[in-house]
Amino acid sequence: MKLTKEQLDEIKNSQSQKNETKRVTSPELEKILYEAIPALDHGFVRVIDYMGDDSSIVQSARVSYGKGTKQVSTDKGLIKYLMRHWHSTPFEMCEIKYHIKLPIFIARQWIRHRTANVNEYSARYSILDKEFYLPSKENLAAQSTSNRQGRGEVLEGEQANKVLELLKNDAERTYDNYETMLNERYDGSIINENEKGLARELARMNLTLNTYTQWYWKTDLLNLMNFLRLRADSHAQYEIRVYADIMLDTLKKWVPITYEAFMDYRVGGTEVSAKGKIIIQKLIKGEEISLEGSGLSKREWNELMEAFDLKDKLI
Amino acid sequence: MKLTKEQLDEIKNSQSQKNETKRVTSPELEKILYEAIPALDHGFVRVIDYMGDDSSIVQSARVSYGKGTKQVSTDKGLIKYLMRHWHSTPFEMCEIKYHIKLPIFIARQWIRHRTANVNEYSARYSILDKEFYLPSKENLAAQSTSNRQGRGEVLEGEQANKVLELLKNDAERTYDNYETMLNERYDGSIINENEKGLARELARMNLTLNTYTQWYWKTDLLNLMNFLRLRADSHAQYEIRVYADIMLDTLKKWVPITYEAFMDYRVGGTEVSAKGKIIIQKLIKGEEISLEGSGLSKREWNELMEAFDLKDKLI
Amino acid sequence: MKLTKEQLDEIKNSQSQKNETKRVTSPELEKILYEAIPALDHGFVRVIDYMGDDSSIVQSARVSYGKGTKQVSTDKGLIKYLMRHWHSTPFEMCEIKYHIKLPIFIARQWIRHRTANVNEYSARYSILDKEFYLPSKENLAAQSTSNRQGRGEVLEGEQANKVLELLKNDAERTYDNYETMLNERYDGSIINENEKGLARELARMNLTLNTYTQWYWKTDLLNLMNFLRLRADSHAQYEIRVYADIMLDTLKKWVPITYEAFMDYRVGGTEVSAKGKIIIQKLIKGEEISLEGSGLSKREWNELMEAFDLKDKLI
Amino acid sequence: MKLTKEQLDEIKNSQSQKNETKRVTSPELEKILYEAIPALDHGFVRVIDYMGDDSSIVQSARVSYGKGTKQVSTDKGLIKYLMRHWHSTPFEMCEIKYHIKLPIFIARQWIRHRTANVNEYSARYSILDKEFYLPSKENLAAQSTSNRQGRGEVLEGEQANKVLELLKNDAERTYDNYETMLNERYDGSIINENEKGLARELARMNLTLNTYTQWYWKTDLLNLMNFLRLRADSHAQYEIRVYADIMLDTLKKWVPITYEAFMDYRVGGTEVSAKGKIIIQKLIKGEEISLEGSGLSKREWNELMEAFDLKDKLI
Repeated sequence: MKLTKEQLDEIKNSQSQKNETKRVTSPELEKILYEAIPALDHGFVRVIDYMGDDSSIVQSARVSYGKGTKQVSTDKGLIKYLMRHWHSTPFEMCEIKYHIKLPIFIARQWIRHRTANVNEYSARYSILDKEFYLPSKENLAAQSTSNRQGRGEVLEGEQANKVLELLKNDAERTYDNYETMLNERYDGSIINENEKGLARELARMNLTLNTYTQWYWKTDLLNLMNFLRLRADSHAQYEIRVYADIMLDTLKKWVPITYEAFMDYRVGGTEVSAKGKIIIQKLIKGEEISLEGSGLSKREWNELMEAFDLKDKLI
Repeated sequence: MKLTKEQLDEIKNSQSQKNETKRVTSPELEKILYEAIPALDHGFVRVIDYMGDDSSIVQSARVSYGKGTKQVSTDKGLIKYLMRHWHSTPFEMCEIKYHIKLPIFIARQWIRHRTANVNEYSARYSILDKEFYLPSKENLAAQSTSNRQGRGEVLEGEQANKVLELLKNDAERTYDNYETMLNERYDGSIINENEKGLARELARMNLTLNTYTQWYWKTDLLNLMNFLRLRADSHAQYEIRVYADIMLDTLKKWVPITYEAFMDYRVGGTEVSAKGKIIIQKLIKGEEISLEGSGLSKREWNELMEAFDLKDKLI
Repeated sequence: MKLTKEQLDEIKNSQSQKNETKRVTSPELEKILYEAIPALDHGFVRVIDYMGDDSSIVQSARVSYGKGTKQVSTDKGLIKYLMRHWHSTPFEMCEIKYHIKLPIFIARQWIRHRTANVNEYSARYSILDKEFYLPSKENLAAQSTSNRQGRGEVLEGEQANKVLELLKNDAERTYDNYETMLNERYDGSIINENEKGLARELARMNLTLNTYTQWYWKTDLLNLMNFLRLRADSHAQYEIRVYADIMLDTLKKWVPITYEAFMDYRVGGTEVSAKGKIIIQKLIKGEEISLEGSGLSKREWNELMEAFDLKDKLI
Repeated sequence: MKLTKEQLDEIKNSQSQKNETKRVTSPELEKILYEAIPALDHGFVRVIDYMGDDSSIVQSARVSYGKGTKQVSTDKGLIKYLMRHWHSTPFEMCEIKYHIKLPIFIARQWIRHRTANVNEYSARYSILDKEFYLPSKENLAAQSTSNRQGRGEVLEGEQANKVLELLKNDAERTYDNYETMLNERYDGSIINENEKGLARELARMNLTLNTYTQWYWKTDLLNLMNFLRLRADSHAQYEIRVYADIMLDTLKKWVPITYEAFMDYRVGGTEVSAKGKIIIQKLIKGEEISLEGSGLSKREWNELMEAFDLKDKLI
């Protein structure tokens, strides 16, 4: 990730602010505010603004439950209780805004989470940077043979080289032709003074899906956790997980108590179906269990055993 | 509006905070942060937290439009442009959180705006305060004879007195019986040591709709303006307009440039239908106009003439 | 529940329709379409319209996953897979619309689910019916002593009678005074020809929260299941559960395969936290477990043991 | 647009359904149900399902306003009234589902409308078709010189040819290399038996933004109109307007009365700001007007004059 001098100056300026406020602040998050945390080869994650902290959740819950919340002695106990019982509205009372730079094919996956506010760089108005994502060799995985949407083994030497070359050449050539069609280079210089350029809104269609875009993305704490639960998960595509992992770290800095409860109840937890419960109960009682008659499919059976780390029960 | 000593202390404590932040601040809004601004007889509006200011809208638009925004020379010009052309996402980048105390029948009207986060005091958990809205005499209006959902003339002396007495007596009696059924008074004292109280979630059904409730209400700037456009309007019910007017004032303190554009393009503006445009064009050209053949209903005709203050054209 | 002749006629008319359509239909749901299913003493649930059936979910998933879905052999297997892995968008492809009549205090609980479309009867425009919810004796529960928002034992004879009388008298008197203030009775007759009536938008504030209202409520299948998961649960207030249970039955008629998966994975299932998993693993291995050092609170411990029906482990 | 035999069979099968239903139907929409209406060179729009018709809006409004709606004599009058006064909830009571095939760069513009349900073909699971959008010559416009996001004159002969060739060649080459990296062709045949293919979720990044994707897109009538208002507008990008225009036609078939009101009040109407109203009033009175002192920018002035077709007032 390289930032222009202009961007570096803007970050420095923003970070040098010392404003006085009566609002609650999150000291650890303040430390990294505006900072561009690198992601993939040219991307970044920046926290741009936020509202509220752990105490805002507690305060909001106390408005709802009135004197009822006095039973729970501590903020931590209350936040854990709210998380465990899927109380959602108190977590909606905190808000965070990110500036993200990311490849378009990842942006398309990301935008499926609709409960956020987004302002994306518009290629109708302006010319996109000449930056595209090229995976590092250890991330060049083959298609999984068992999982339609997963990755298998890493590609070996020569084939990996070929893939990287194809990706690089195609991205560069399509970008060069994008400039040709626009009759303008990214820096604003005109290529041929005697020609008009194709409209930007059309020329962009020639770019490949690994071209970088950027956006402001703002969401509340509840929806941030919903996003992270899915996207920081091992089943998520590696490229979006890189972003989710960075954001998980900003979550920890922002609302440390909520983060802890989130890791325990959501990320580290599991769900058990009605049929799965019967199997677990039998296991606890030391009874025989078998796939047959369990009502579980083989796949479901294995998912259950893996969730409880019962490797000898895998079939 | 009376606040308990506890509430006054909490407000004082919150207001005495002097935290340092790198976030942008809104100095005028900081001045009234946490303050309970009175609304109706027992209600209030408090700004509890906020995120962003006018500059955040500009910053967000500049991310979208890249170099394209350099054409617009000033922040004010850009915000006016965005408002005029119904650009929505930059205004979603600011967020505000209110603490509101309001009568239940107004809360029910308010909640129909679904694009906000709400945490309401729960009468399943806790006992509601003995506070109900009683209109002042000048607001005791008769049903409008021309508008199904409007108010007409103010009721006269004797009848007004009777209405106020009925409202007051019924609210008090139903509240007293609420306590009787709960077998508990608001201060927590038990009424009859030998009896159980009815569950709170049931007893509350005896309260009248003018009983006060309270909530935290958080929304983004775009949806706040949508709310205010409808609820600060002269067609809105007086009781919700009181709240909207106070919030309009907090909008002005928070984002003064946006406020100005909002007043010009939304609150003070009007819409003209395709058929209405033809009428206006004829008027400008000095041509004859008539309801007949205009395609407008009589009501629509009058709405158009009123929008442009053409009182002599009313029919 | 009594319906007016007008309502009965309307239902009969609607039900007598025999329209031809190329859309998919849900035969079991068609059988009860428009029918008013009684709920509580004066309420009802009516299915008014719907879009899609189980096959629509499958069809939608197949568009997403293309040839990838061919691996799953049956519609049932695919729907179970989608439910188990929290795939949400295919379930959003079906829609249902209800007409509900319910007490206002329940409507206020209900409306907190914001992801639905609602059209409520407006007491600004029209006069509400003289109908209020009065619990049956077996539902007159005392406040729970262990759970702030729960019910305990049923109230006994004399106290129950007193409560019912208070509820009935207060509802009737406040309604009578509502009519007096309006100077109009529900049937439209004027009470005193020489007086004006108070505006409807004001008079309504005198009604108690057990007065019935009604609305059209439209939602997609995903959000319907989210609603039912919370409101058909044993922790939900009895009065809303009555509605949720009826709607659960309409779900079964509408999308029987989805219903079955929903009951297995959501309603009958449970969640286990990271710390809880360790306890379950120890139990399966036959190891000693103890609250101390588990990281669980006593309350959480008991919730876990109850989920797996391990009554001897309760503490 | 070419459809495979498989697709044609599926459409034929769906269209041959003759199901009986008690639901309301929209006869004109039934006629084109499931039909693939061509859009651009390879795209289409298909109406897949719908719920409700004009009468559903009326029915829903009558529930809200009770007897109050009896004043409005006709369904048409009521729908016009609702549209004029921005009543939103009755229009939310109808729902429609489309199957759309469209280029990715248009899909990215489209998805910014978040209030819809979407199920997109997943290139993580399955291989995309070898189909890309190539504009026809008359749509190859140059960048507008006056409008950052607009199109200017059409490109001339030779340059147009060059652009089309670049677009075609780049799309084909990147697609061929996509297959090479996958080691698999679209028809499922393996290219090199001794090699593994790159994971689909990675290989897709090599495709250009004019590659076609497809999705199911479901929305309510209110949000459909919001979408069409923006996207069937002359300022929208031509390529998305092609889709919006087709959908506008399906709107007309589905809910003809609503369509008419929509065209009058939304599409054909205009907005006038508070400052603009003063200018119009002066024009009607025959007074002098001038930009100076009007508070309008030059651009805003011209937008106002154009809205009322006052070409001689342009400056």
